[in-house]
Amino acid sequence: MRAVTLYNSLLTFQSNVAEPIPKHGEVLVDVTLAGVCETDLQLCKGYMGFSGIIGHEFVGVARSGRFAGQRVVGEINCVCQECRWCRQGSGTHCPSRSVLGILNRDGVFADVVALPECNLHAVPDSVPNDQAVFTEPLAAALQIIQQVDLTQKKVVVLGDGRLGMLCAQAVRLMTGSVLVVGKHPEKIARFQKLGIPIELLSDLSREPAFDVVVDCTGSSSGLEVASSIVLPLGTIVLKTTVAGNHSMSLAKLVIDEVTVIGSRCGPFKKALVSLEAQAFDLDGLISHRFPIERFADAMQTAVDPAAFKVVFDLSK
Amino acid sequence: MRAVTLYNSLLTFQSNVAEPIPKHGEVLVDVTLAGVCETDLQLCKGYMGFSGIIGHEFVGVARSGRFAGQRVVGEINCVCQECRWCRQGSGTHCPSRSVLGILNRDGVFADVVALPECNLHAVPDSVPNDQAVFTEPLAAALQIIQQVDLTQKKVVVLGDGRLGMLCAQAVRLMTGSVLVVGKHPEKIARFQKLGIPIELLSDLSREPAFDVVVDCTGSSSGLEVASSIVLPLGTIVLKTTVAGNHSMSLAKLVIDEVTVIGSRCGPFKKALVSLEAQAFDLDGLISHRFPIERFADAMQTAVDPAAFKVVFDLSK
Repeated sequence: MRAVTLYNSLLTFQSNVAEPIPKHGEVLVDVTLAGVCETDLQLCKGYMGFSGIIGHEFVGVARSGRFAGQRVVGEINCVCQECRWCRQGSGTHCPSRSVLGILNRDGVFADVVALPECNLHAVPDSVPNDQAVFTEPLAAALQIIQQVDLTQKKVVVLGDGRLGMLCAQAVRLMTGSVLVVGKHPEKIARFQKLGIPIELLSDLSREPAFDVVVDCTGSSSGLEVASSIVLPLGTIVLKTTVAGNHSMSLAKLVIDEVTVIGSRCGPFKKALVSLEAQAFDLDGLISHRFPIERFADAMQTAVDPAAFKVVFDLSK
Repeated sequence: MRAVTLYNSLLTFQSNVAEPIPKHGEVLVDVTLAGVCETDLQLCKGYMGFSGIIGHEFVGVARSGRFAGQRVVGEINCVCQECRWCRQGSGTHCPSRSVLGILNRDGVFADVVALPECNLHAVPDSVPNDQAVFTEPLAAALQIIQQVDLTQKKVVVLGDGRLGMLCAQAVRLMTGSVLVVGKHPEKIARFQKLGIPIELLSDLSREPAFDVVVDCTGSSSGLEVASSIVLPLGTIVLKTTVAGNHSMSLAKLVIDEVTVIGSRCGPFKKALVSLEAQAFDLDGLISHRFPIERFADAMQTAVDPAAFKVVFDLSK
């Protein structure tokens, strides 16, 4: 099969990789579309020290098992089902987990992927592949509203990228309104089209004004900006992982008794229900579509701030 | 009056400073004992850019008002009583506050201090001055259990200093047990005497093992240690403010969905009730006692890890 492999920060395409052999409980899935995520770009910079086939956002067709022949998406954490975390329903924190295309498990920038059957969810008929491929990042966005009570809160999302747009829409479901702060004038129209107010970082008043700040900047400077605009007793949600170090004074967080909460994977079922209910506007979010052979162009494009979601089309 | 004044990071003692003139609602308090806090040491390094008389931990005798002639302690945040924060009972976050010896208000390393009468609390007769002088840091320690549900949690306090000891005792009130991690072999006996298990940082296994980590290190490296030993979905309480920058990767906090919460001033009433109930063992915590004229020796001593609480005795 075809696959894009990361090894020592070097990304290569191979056309003759052996198909994965499913282990007990796993099924093979033929990948239809795979999305490029900021995390993939960070992995290429050394984040997590991952080696193997990268990619974790996908929609495909299961080859066997209870979803055989059906369109599926898949949760990315493959867990033991037995430890303290799994038993209490926090399987995403299972210490012996592997994570699709991120930690000890080959990912979806490939024709075929193996995943535990229990990780799979059938895609409702009314949800097209171009939307289903967003299930994983949409679930991650919905995780925010599982973690933080946003009722009557003034919320800002830092970051005008892919995740920022999904998080802004997730927040808006709860609050009715949300401000996005971005760096890229060329992206303003996208948010305006969704009816989401957006402000440029250069114009942002650095004064405490928000109960909740969601950091989707994918930048090590995001927390410092968040810290400057969060109100006392407010909350900063750290949504992106970056390979680098943060350097900042934490005194303000202590003085203002701010809560900083890390936020990672979210609820797939809720994401699929949201997609079926058309609660999110994803029209036009896929800005570029590449065959997997053009992986280098795809990754380059994903780095470009002007691009939105870049996907590999693996359908035959 | 006598006073110790900070100006441009330079501390000076003067014997002829004018007594403060109380503003509307304020009363004068004759200071009996004043404690040296880590924050005072940080102020001397430039933290908050404070100029004026430093010191905020004290017990004294009110000269006038409803507490005239009584022993009192005083809350350090002097607030407007009118803003959103004051009205919702979060006056410590009043944006127009002054803070005793820390922000726009002269402190207690002086014979006399002016404070709003509403900041004062009478000291119960059964509580001696040597304990009452701990009311402010004790309240700060109790703030932790107001912010974080410690029920059935495995908690560690990082830092074997003054605040670490009070926080460990506050935590133990809720959990029954607590581990302290320190750097100083010479302090071990103090904690053992209180029945609090203590481990040296050099012996600490850097593996996730605690639901809650309270950072009382007063060091910019505290958060990194905390991050390495907190369990997924756990909480780090940042208790100390430092003048310097933190530099660390925040990826683990995101991946493990850790909550970091800043924690500052706490409930004076609860602290006084705790003192009256003898819920805290403070015997021998005052390791050094200086007349205010020997301010330089006092501050030098407070920096020494072997010292515990250093106080100025201003009684006449």
